[in-house]
Amino acid sequence: DFENALEEVVPAFGVSLEMFAKCTLNGIVEWGPSIERILSDGQLFVQQVRNSKRTPLVSVLLEGAPKTGKTALAATLAQQSDFPLIKMISPETMVGYTEASKVSAINKVFEDAYKSQLSVIMIDDIERLLDYVPIGPRFSNVVLQSLLVLIQKPPPSGHKLFIIGTTSDRRTMRDLGVFDAFSHSLHVDTMTHGDELLKVIREVDAFNPSETAAIESALSHGNKLKVELCGETFISLGIKRLYMLIEMARQEEHNSADRFLQGLYDVCKLD
Amino acid sequence: DFENALEEVVPAFGVSLEMFAKCTLNGIVEWGPSIERILSDGQLFVQQVRNSKRTPLVSVLLEGAPKTGKTALAATLAQQSDFPLIKMISPETMVGYTEASKVSAINKVFEDAYKSQLSVIMIDDIERLLDYVPIGPRFSNVVLQSLLVLIQKPPPSGHKLFIIGTTSDRRTMRDLGVFDAFSHSLHVDTMTHGDELLKVIREVDAFNPSETAAIESALSHGNKLKVELCGETFISLGIKRLYMLIEMARQEEHNSADRFLQGLYDVCKLD
Amino acid sequence: DFENALEEVVPAFGVSLEMFAKCTLNGIVEWGPSIERILSDGQLFVQQVRNSKRTPLVSVLLEGAPKTGKTALAATLAQQSDFPLIKMISPETMVGYTEASKVSAINKVFEDAYKSQLSVIMIDDIERLLDYVPIGPRFSNVVLQSLLVLIQKPPPSGHKLFIIGTTSDRRTMRDLGVFDAFSHSLHVDTMTHGDELLKVIREVDAFNPSETAAIESALSHGNKLKVELCGETFISLGIKRLYMLIEMARQEEHNSADRFLQGLYDVCKLD
Amino acid sequence: DFENALEEVVPAFGVSLEMFAKCTLNGIVEWGPSIERILSDGQLFVQQVRNSKRTPLVSVLLEGAPKTGKTALAATLAQQSDFPLIKMISPETMVGYTEASKVSAINKVFEDAYKSQLSVIMIDDIERLLDYVPIGPRFSNVVLQSLLVLIQKPPPSGHKLFIIGTTSDRRTMRDLGVFDAFSHSLHVDTMTHGDELLKVIREVDAFNPSETAAIESALSHGNKLKVELCGETFISLGIKRLYMLIEMARQEEHNSADRFLQGLYDVCKLD
Amino acid sequence: DFENALEEVVPAFGVSLEMFAKCTLNGIVEWGPSIERILSDGQLFVQQVRNSKRTPLVSVLLEGAPKTGKTALAATLAQQSDFPLIKMISPETMVGYTEASKVSAINKVFEDAYKSQLSVIMIDDIERLLDYVPIGPRFSNVVLQSLLVLIQKPPPSGHKLFIIGTTSDRRTMRDLGVFDAFSHSLHVDTMTHGDELLKVIREVDAFNPSETAAIESALSHGNKLKVELCGETFISLGIKRLYMLIEMARQEEHNSADRFLQGLYDVCKLD
Amino acid sequence: DFENALEEVVPAFGVSLEMFAKCTLNGIVEWGPSIERILSDGQLFVQQVRNSKRTPLVSVLLEGAPKTGKTALAATLAQQSDFPLIKMISPETMVGYTEASKVSAINKVFEDAYKSQLSVIMIDDIERLLDYVPIGPRFSNVVLQSLLVLIQKPPPSGHKLFIIGTTSDRRTMRDLGVFDAFSHSLHVDTMTHGDELLKVIREVDAFNPSETAAIESALSHGNKLKVELCGETFISLGIKRLYMLIEMARQEEHNSADRFLQGLYDVCKLD
Ligand SMILES: Nc1ncnc2c1ncn2[C@@H]1O[C@H](COP(=O)(O)OP(=O)(O)OP(=O)(O)O)[C@@H](O)[C@H]1O
Ligand SMILES: Nc1ncnc2c1ncn2[C@@H]1O[C@H](COP(=O)(O)OP(=O)(O)OP(=O)(O)O)[C@@H](O)[C@H]1O
Ligand SMILES: Nc1ncnc2c1ncn2[C@@H]1O[C@H](COP(=O)(O)OP(=O)(O)OP(=O)(O)O)[C@@H](O)[C@H]1O
Ligand SMILES: Nc1ncnc2c1ncn2[C@@H]1O[C@H](COP(=O)(O)OP(=O)(O)OP(=O)(O)O)[C@@H](O)[C@H]1O
Ligand SMILES: Nc1ncnc2c1ncn2[C@@H]1O[C@H](COP(=O)(O)OP(=O)(O)OP(=O)(O)O)[C@@H](O)[C@H]1O
Ligand SMILES: Nc1ncnc2c1ncn2[C@@H]1O[C@H](COP(=O)(O)OP(=O)(O)OP(=O)(O)O)[C@@H](O)[C@H]1O
Ligand SMILES: [Mg+2]
Ligand SMILES: [Mg+2]
Ligand SMILES: [Mg+2]
Ligand SMILES: [Mg+2]
Ligand SMILES: [Mg+2]
Ligand SMILES: [Mg+2]
Repeated sequence: DFENALEEVVPAFGVSLEMFAKCTLNGIVEWGPSIERILSDGQLFVQQVRNSKRTPLVSVLLEGAPKTGKTALAATLAQQSDFPLIKMISPETMVGYTEASKVSAINKVFEDAYKSQLSVIMIDDIERLLDYVPIGPRFSNVVLQSLLVLIQKPPPSGHKLFIIGTTSDRRTMRDLGVFDAFSHSLHVDTMTHGDELLKVIREVDAFNPSETAAIESALSHGNKLKVELCGETFISLGIKRLYMLIEMARQEEHNSADRFLQGLYDVCKLD
Repeated sequence: DFENALEEVVPAFGVSLEMFAKCTLNGIVEWGPSIERILSDGQLFVQQVRNSKRTPLVSVLLEGAPKTGKTALAATLAQQSDFPLIKMISPETMVGYTEASKVSAINKVFEDAYKSQLSVIMIDDIERLLDYVPIGPRFSNVVLQSLLVLIQKPPPSGHKLFIIGTTSDRRTMRDLGVFDAFSHSLHVDTMTHGDELLKVIREVDAFNPSETAAIESALSHGNKLKVELCGETFISLGIKRLYMLIEMARQEEHNSADRFLQGLYDVCKLD
Repeated sequence: DFENALEEVVPAFGVSLEMFAKCTLNGIVEWGPSIERILSDGQLFVQQVRNSKRTPLVSVLLEGAPKTGKTALAATLAQQSDFPLIKMISPETMVGYTEASKVSAINKVFEDAYKSQLSVIMIDDIERLLDYVPIGPRFSNVVLQSLLVLIQKPPPSGHKLFIIGTTSDRRTMRDLGVFDAFSHSLHVDTMTHGDELLKVIREVDAFNPSETAAIESALSHGNKLKVELCGETFISLGIKRLYMLIEMARQEEHNSADRFLQGLYDVCKLD
Repeated sequence: DFENALEEVVPAFGVSLEMFAKCTLNGIVEWGPSIERILSDGQLFVQQVRNSKRTPLVSVLLEGAPKTGKTALAATLAQQSDFPLIKMISPETMVGYTEASKVSAINKVFEDAYKSQLSVIMIDDIERLLDYVPIGPRFSNVVLQSLLVLIQKPPPSGHKLFIIGTTSDRRTMRDLGVFDAFSHSLHVDTMTHGDELLKVIREVDAFNPSETAAIESALSHGNKLKVELCGETFISLGIKRLYMLIEMARQEEHNSADRFLQGLYDVCKLD
Repeated sequence: DFENALEEVVPAFGVSLEMFAKCTLNGIVEWGPSIERILSDGQLFVQQVRNSKRTPLVSVLLEGAPKTGKTALAATLAQQSDFPLIKMISPETMVGYTEASKVSAINKVFEDAYKSQLSVIMIDDIERLLDYVPIGPRFSNVVLQSLLVLIQKPPPSGHKLFIIGTTSDRRTMRDLGVFDAFSHSLHVDTMTHGDELLKVIREVDAFNPSETAAIESALSHGNKLKVELCGETFISLGIKRLYMLIEMARQEEHNSADRFLQGLYDVCKLD
Repeated sequence: DFENALEEVVPAFGVSLEMFAKCTLNGIVEWGPSIERILSDGQLFVQQVRNSKRTPLVSVLLEGAPKTGKTALAATLAQQSDFPLIKMISPETMVGYTEASKVSAINKVFEDAYKSQLSVIMIDDIERLLDYVPIGPRFSNVVLQSLLVLIQKPPPSGHKLFIIGTTSDRRTMRDLGVFDAFSHSLHVDTMTHGDELLKVIREVDAFNPSETAAIESALSHGNKLKVELCGETFISLGIKRLYMLIEMARQEEHNSADRFLQGLYDVCKLD
């Protein structure tokens, strides 16, 4: 493939790499088929970027409920591309930036990417980048407009660019035109079956055998996860929230299984 | 526990300590089981922060009606953590700050916390920090967005952070996304039973024996506190308001019991 | 009482004293029991501030219709406290100030107060301080938020602070959260009975005996003040407006009683 | 009268006097009793300002439809007061001023007035001073708030101030609180009777005798002015608009009476 | 006439004259009686300005649908006045001006005019000067307020001013108070009859005889212009749009009549 | 033609030419008659600009759904004019510009164009230039107003200007007055027939013969493109989106026809 021959060896930006690592602190547990699909589709897009001359820009938006693992999955896709330039745009590094500084920082990342022949840019948590709040609603139109242009602007002739975005707010992204600015989108699921939770619990090895058995027996009743106490309500849980539940419950020395199940109940009560 | 061994001995910031003391001017009277639950849950979160490698950031929002003792309870939790770094972010120290100065001050507290291996940050009265007013509604989106990011941003690798927030306006916090940014929440109750009020009155030793007896007899009629004059209205009273009632009534030399009960009546009339 | 012993003798700020005098240009006429109640409750609050260690901050909001004498009553309460530091925050001294200058001036008054062990701060005409206008509505959120914090922020340990506010717009103060920021409130009444008006007219000695007699006879018909010409409408009049009516009518040399009564009629027609 | 003895002889500000003259270019024609009433009430207010110690500040708002002669009447009242200081605040001198410059200019006029023992300030066309536009609505809240305070702020002890405002928009003035800030108001009428128009036409001596006769005959049919062509519509005409009609019609050499009556018809069609 | 004797010979401002010429690029074709009426009324206003001492300021607003020739007519009236000072205020010279620069430029034109004894100011396309857009709606209130004052402010004593404005949006001008600020208004019509179009087509001599004949036959069917293809829809066309249709159609060498008629059909379909 | 003789040979601006090339990366495939019509009408407008003295300014707006090829078509029209000055105004070169810089850059392009006797300006993606977002809605009124004036302002005497705009949002352009500011408009279609898609697929030579045959057979069922899986939904697809589908499908080595058809199905599901 001719790009590989030509590409400058731009070492990926140091600070960013550390950030990519932090995003996948607990790895990727393949708790269900939707995770595998996301990873394989991601590979295909990477191939399209490498090979196609007619579409030098490919972009994909990972969208799903809060705490479902979007950031970890996006970081994983970006790292797996093996492109020589890999960058992250994240609200965490822009706290208190003025709108102008934000745009300038974002623009800088794209300018850097245009210099490499193969680049991948991850744009994390777009609603936060936009300072979006549903009351009003308010958001930074300056940042929004810059993103809308940059996400659709092809790199210079002969260069290729892969963009991966994440958002918890698909509807707003559609209303703001961000959704349509991406050429593809992938949905990140919540866990809704007892089996899915159990897969993670076992992988993490969080509880001692008897506690684990108690949880297994409580979660294996049906196909879809319906916690006894919730009545008819089904549970839909993001993986990041599951980790929080597990770690909290582990602090109780003697009845951590109970505490864990109580935690599940609290979740369904809150939603 | 390995963190204890590693942690730098960062002396907690002086001014802040004085502020923590001021927040608990009248101590914590355990007038009911909900107070005990808050204190014990708080201990558990502290433990999770200390021990878990998978969740280096734990955050809890104390929410309850105005004058219910949220600030005093949050300060107590923060102080009981015994973490080497303990900081408070409070609107009282930011009167007249521009939005930018506010964000900068808030950011500074978090930057400081990231340097200690175990830190606790108390964020008091979040709606005031946000300059929130329901008419409009108006609020500082700049401060809001900074908080939303900082409350969810994990500390650097190997560091731990515990965040305690307080608010009188749960609904707005939910609408603004602040509620969901916290990993946990605890509800602070008002007092609704005569027994609860009496516990505080006795502890404070506010009135002379005969006046105390008069109040006791007036408040002990039923289980739930229904002041005679209010008709069918039940009273729901924050502890801070109770202190104000008591101190006012004490100024009347001869009929302070009457004045106290009249004060209760005024409260129910106003609400 | 221990504070008296300790307090620094901070001479009250000169300019302010002149302003307090200007506020009570025509003294306080006790035209009804509500005036006495306000004065006596005011005394009680002063006592609470002096004596209570648990409530070092006491605040009261005088609210009533426009022109009812709120400013004069607040100034009287403040002066009667005999506290060593007495300050006034008034929109009259801040015409054309930017929001930042306003906040800074207000903050300065509080900072000064925190240095005295016993202080009283009068905040006059809060809706004007807030640049409030019902169309929009618009107001200075910066000033509002500063006031909300300062009105509730306890003075430094060992110091005491008494705050007296005035407003003509109780409803807006409630909506903006100002009302609830005060620990107490007192209602200032309009005059609605002929007897009340007559008490002021006699005290002022505005008209010659025969004119006075004519007015007395016209106003003494019923208990509640119902001017003949208004039909079924009852009159409700602020004392400041009464002074304006009297002074206007006095300019007519020969039929000032008629002119006065005509003025009363115009008031009821306008409202 | 003691003020006359004491007052400094501050010569009225030159430029202003020229402006007062320009406002009364065509004098005051007493076309009806309402004009006389305004002039005599104005005299009474002047007397109150001079004599009363209890009301050192008196203010009156002239309100009426556009083009009814409010500016000319206000200027006449101000000039007739014979007060040593007489000032005008007019939007005509503030085109393109920033809000801050406007407030500063307005404030300056009041500061100057406070230095004279007897002053009169005319505030012309308040809705224009406020940059008011009903779409939105929009207006300068900074100027509004300054006016609200200054119109009600008593002059320094021993000094007297008379304020005369004009507005074409009584309803908005009420909504903005400007109306209630004035202690008095006077209504300026439109002309609605043929006799009233004829009085002005004759005084001005605009048309030759035969044309005048034609107009007289057309306008004298009924008591209230109902132009033939308007059908059932009655005409209500400001004096300034009448002057414009007369002057236009005079340009037609031969049929100016017809043109004048056609002009009246156009007015009723437009409204 | 005395002004003629006195007036300074201020040469009309060079740049402006070129702009006036550009506005009447295609002259004025008298396609109907409304055009003649506008020109003759314009003359009468000019006379009033010259002669009347009581109305030194006369102003007229030309209002009509887009592309009806308002700018050309206004420029013609201004030029026919033969006043020594003739100025144009046009959005075309103010692209990208700040509000402040716009007001300053507008003010400058008026200041210049006040120096000449007889001046005419043309204010073109007022909605564009105001940056008006119906969504919102938004507009520059600063420019609006300046215009409202300047359009009604009489020139200095002894000087005369004639103001001619144009607008395509009568309704908005009324809502914003601009319409009422002018002392007169004139309506500019669209063309609605075949005869009117033909008059222009012949004058312009756009098509060869046979094409012209074809168009004549198509347009002469009825009194009011009803293009066959439009069904029951009548056409209403501005003269500027007619010129565009003609010039487009002329490019087709062989069937320009067809193309012209097709163009008419497209217009009625679009509206 | 006299302009050709006179025109200065202004070399078209270098950077822009590269941009024009980038806009037509995949050429223009004439997949249907609407494409031919756009190209021929474009030629006619070019002729009008060259020849007409009465209409020195001609402007056309290309409007159509997102991804339909508007930018490529506009760039093609501009390049085919063969005018000596050819410029592009594009949001891609203005990311993060302030409103003022944007206006200044836009103005500069027009100023440059006025210097050439024959110029063409392409204004791409007007809604993005305006920072338009439907939520609010928000947009830069400063840029809008500048465009509204510049699009309608004739070039200096003797000069000619052709303006080509593009937009995906016809309705908003109409509401903002942009649509009516252009003298002409052309609609860019989506593809709705299988034949149209096949024409492009064959031209591009994307798939191997057997895969191509499979696609042909799937798309040739009916006249209008109704993908089996969509049920009754018809597909309407922009050419840019078609290119993305093709390139994605090509990455699957063995079943790219299936993947392509699945992609079509996803499009109809999303819309
Ligand atoms: N299959 C998985 N998918 C995603 N994350 C996983 C998976 N398995 C384990 N994880 C771990 O779960 C956590 C997911 O957190 P992450 O921050 O990615 O969630 P998020 O959806 O971005 O949350 P937020 O909505 O707050 O941005 C990470 O620590 C990650 O290592
Ligand atoms: N059980 C208790 N919980 C909380 N506060 C208590 C308790 N017992 C006594 N207190 C005292 O009551 C007061 C509570 O006031 P605090 O300022 O915490 O209330 P708050 O809810 O933060 O009020 P606000 O809504 O105004 O912020 C403190 O003086 C505290 O010492
Ligand atoms: N009983 C009384 N209460 C209040 N004011 C009184 C009383 N008796 C006489 N006065 C006189 O009446 C006047 C009250 O005016 P004041 O400015 O206090 O009214 P206000 O309610 O503050 O008006 P505003 O609504 O305009 O602020 C003062 O001059 C005061 O001296
Ligand atoms: N009785 C009268 N009352 C008022 N003005 C009169 C009277 N008789 C004659 N005039 C003349 O009529 C004109 C009134 O114009 P003026 O500017 O005062 O009207 P206005 O109501 O202020 O108009 P606008 O609503 O535009 O401000 C002046 O030229 C004045 O000299
Ligand atoms: N009777 C006429 N009235 C006006 N313009 C005419 C007439 N006859 C010919 N014209 C020509 O028609 C054109 C009118 O264009 P003009 O710019 O004045 O229209 P407009 O109404 O101002 O358009 P817009 O609404 O875009 O501002 C000019 O070129 C003018 O020379
Ligand atoms: N007939 C055609 N019309 C337009 N573009 C075509 C045609 N045939 C092939 N193309 C190619 O299709 C692509 C059209 O993309 P273009 O950017 O012009 O679409 P667009 O409508 O401007 O999209 P957007 O709505 O995102 O601005 C270009 O690469 C162009 O070379
Ligand atoms: Mg995330
Ligand atoms: Mg608190
Ligand atoms: Mg007051
Ligand atoms: Mg006036
Ligand atoms: Mg025009
Ligand atoms: Mg495009």
